[in-house]
Amino acid sequence: MAAPLVAAAAVASAADPLPSWNDGAPKKAIFEFVRRVTREGSADYIAPRERIAVFDNDGTLWAEQPIYFQFAFAIDRVKTLSSVHPEWRTTAPFKDVLTGDIKALAASGKQGLLQVMAASHSGITTEDFNTIVGSWLATAKHPRFQRRYTELAYQPMLELLDYLRSQDFKTFIVSGGGVEFMRVFAEQVYGIPPEQVIGSSAATKFVPVGTDGKPALIKEPHVEFIDDGIGKPSGINRFIGRRPLLAFGNSDGDLPMLQWTAGGAGPRFVALIHHTDADREFAYDRQSAVGKLDKALDEAQRQQWLIIDMKRDWLRVFSAGK
Amino acid sequence: MAAPLVAAAAVASAADPLPSWNDGAPKKAIFEFVRRVTREGSADYIAPRERIAVFDNDGTLWAEQPIYFQFAFAIDRVKTLSSVHPEWRTTAPFKDVLTGDIKALAASGKQGLLQVMAASHSGITTEDFNTIVGSWLATAKHPRFQRRYTELAYQPMLELLDYLRSQDFKTFIVSGGGVEFMRVFAEQVYGIPPEQVIGSSAATKFVPVGTDGKPALIKEPHVEFIDDGIGKPSGINRFIGRRPLLAFGNSDGDLPMLQWTAGGAGPRFVALIHHTDADREFAYDRQSAVGKLDKALDEAQRQQWLIIDMKRDWLRVFSAGK
Repeated sequence: MAAPLVAAAAVASAADPLPSWNDGAPKKAIFEFVRRVTREGSADYIAPRERIAVFDNDGTLWAEQPIYFQFAFAIDRVKTLSSVHPEWRTTAPFKDVLTGDIKALAASGKQGLLQVMAASHSGITTEDFNTIVGSWLATAKHPRFQRRYTELAYQPMLELLDYLRSQDFKTFIVSGGGVEFMRVFAEQVYGIPPEQVIGSSAATKFVPVGTDGKPALIKEPHVEFIDDGIGKPSGINRFIGRRPLLAFGNSDGDLPMLQWTAGGAGPRFVALIHHTDADREFAYDRQSAVGKLDKALDEAQRQQWLIIDMKRDWLRVFSAGK
Repeated sequence: MAAPLVAAAAVASAADPLPSWNDGAPKKAIFEFVRRVTREGSADYIAPRERIAVFDNDGTLWAEQPIYFQFAFAIDRVKTLSSVHPEWRTTAPFKDVLTGDIKALAASGKQGLLQVMAASHSGITTEDFNTIVGSWLATAKHPRFQRRYTELAYQPMLELLDYLRSQDFKTFIVSGGGVEFMRVFAEQVYGIPPEQVIGSSAATKFVPVGTDGKPALIKEPHVEFIDDGIGKPSGINRFIGRRPLLAFGNSDGDLPMLQWTAGGAGPRFVALIHHTDADREFAYDRQSAVGKLDKALDEAQRQQWLIIDMKRDWLRVFSAGK
């Protein structure tokens, strides 16, 4: 009886673009909104070119615990580079990275974090950086799930991205993460091309004649733009130049993006993902050091924005495994 | 005999995607390059998602003489705002703008220029700014041609943009001009949507509750990014994240963009537009205060990049009129 069951499952999947979503209110709300703005002749019809959908990345499209995955990359990169930086063994914050003293590292604060990010993300060409990130993603594993980080993308969100694109939405990432880090995997994992990835960035410097005799862009150690908090509406304005129709986030850093989206004229759709599933993923909100969700949760309740309860609303969490 | 002639012209136009280009070497080179990278199975085939084409705006897609059109807007805006800024009548550089003393204005240098740009481009919401630019474009006229500025787009370049898009290229503007200024007309005039317009920008500030009670983005007076010269490869990297396959410019400010494009692996196409037509448009290069073309002309000759001679290669110049 296996074959007919498999065939029936395939039919169900073809009919339902969001098979990993429980048949609850959030799924229904998504379908209703998309139908409302895409049905020609309807009062709320929006032309395809204005169907902009924006998504935070960490905690919205893939996991972010116990530390941001990009920071795990930075730690591994500092370890690799330490062979040519013997002085790091005795200098904070690098010695704390090398000895794995996360408490001391945390005590070095934002300044320490920026030093680690700068040392691990600069001084090389943009093309070499892409190669290094690609190699890391191909081998590094998440400490709890023992899977590659790109396998910890959320299956329900991958289905949502595909569904929206099938309805002529243009999907963008708007994340506090580094734009060049995300672009290495965003197209393959999310189907989002580099030019639709918006993130934080450090400066780059153009050199007409690089070390190989060709023009190069060198990644510099100073921050140029932080695409988080009130930076997100500015980033959307600078990179997209249209107000989104639909926005998904999961933390207080997404609140201004959700407010900016919700504040537009006509129909808008904003949603928060609430991490409520300690068994399959993680459960955290108001007290979390990573992905804190406090003010945005209050505001979502006040404004009756959609709140997605991961445990209740998602039948499956990750793109790989359960 | 009029009807058959018109019909014949329509057939010719349907067969040739670049009817405003003379049948010379530049037109042939464009067709050859596009065929080379789009023919499936060819060694130089490039997938559609990597077919990125970038264009400077001022002097490449529309005219830029006698002054950048955005600066003409700034001057008109300062005149409008002077009614609520009586102090400008006695303060440089504003008094020079109001009295039309271009020589004194030029003497105020870069600092004076930035003051005029800041005063005319900030202190309002992004949405109000769009409305103001739209109204100006609908009424202001070019001093020599007595046409609206958007009618001074180059017809051969509009045909080239359309042709490239028909071959699955994604077309971007990469200009030193203000990104929010260009976006007001880029979609309608060039068919380039806001998210594919890259330009210089001033900071914006997100305000959760604006004057109308809704979230707003306020344009601030300080420059955030100059998308000119060595800023262009950085801008391409930040906004697009792929190296272009094809780049068009017309001045020394485009040289790094052309170098960055030409330096990529595999087939690349870079071209300069040389303003050689004083009768139909303007003739200028090495000595021009606006759109100076000197080092880039030398480099184009050295590297055998395509140099488009406006007088020789374009049968028609503007989208409106001759």
